[in-house]
Amino acid sequence: ILLSRTTRCTCISISNRSVNPNSLEKLEVIPASQSCPRVEIIATMKKNGEKRCLNPESKMVNNILKALSKNG
Amino acid sequence: ILLSRTTRCTCISISNRSVNPNSLEKLEVIPASQSCPRVEIIATMKKNGEKRCLNPESKMVNNILKALSKNG
Repeated sequence: ILLSRTTRCTCISISNRSVNPNSLEKLEVIPASQSCPRVEIIATMKKNGEKRCLNPESKMVNNILKALSKNG
Repeated sequence: ILLSRTTRCTCISISNRSVNPNSLEKLEVIPASQSCPRVEIIATMKKNGEKRCLNPESKMVNNILKALSKNG
């Protein structure tokens, strides 16, 4: 008997809109796991707390991470 | 009158221990803001949910971010 694992990804859809690093409250990186087979990147916006899922393979995400690290 | 702003950083101390990307449940990146003047990187461990603050300027953090993005 194969037990099927329920997939529990947080992101249903991925936004391709650009995100200004300065407008971010936080960025969460959730590695691939047994509960979700793909990396998830969740941006929380300062203004309204809105959460947006971003494409981990986009250049934008790399740029955001670079920008955030430099602001320290 | 100068109103002093209370600093509310999440991290009190920063761990320099190395972290295996595979042992991470998630990684949070919190940009510098009015409530905390520095970038904060918070790693949540799979095993026990322990949270560790990492040094945003360390190579380790860059390596973790690279590793996580590739696992997708």
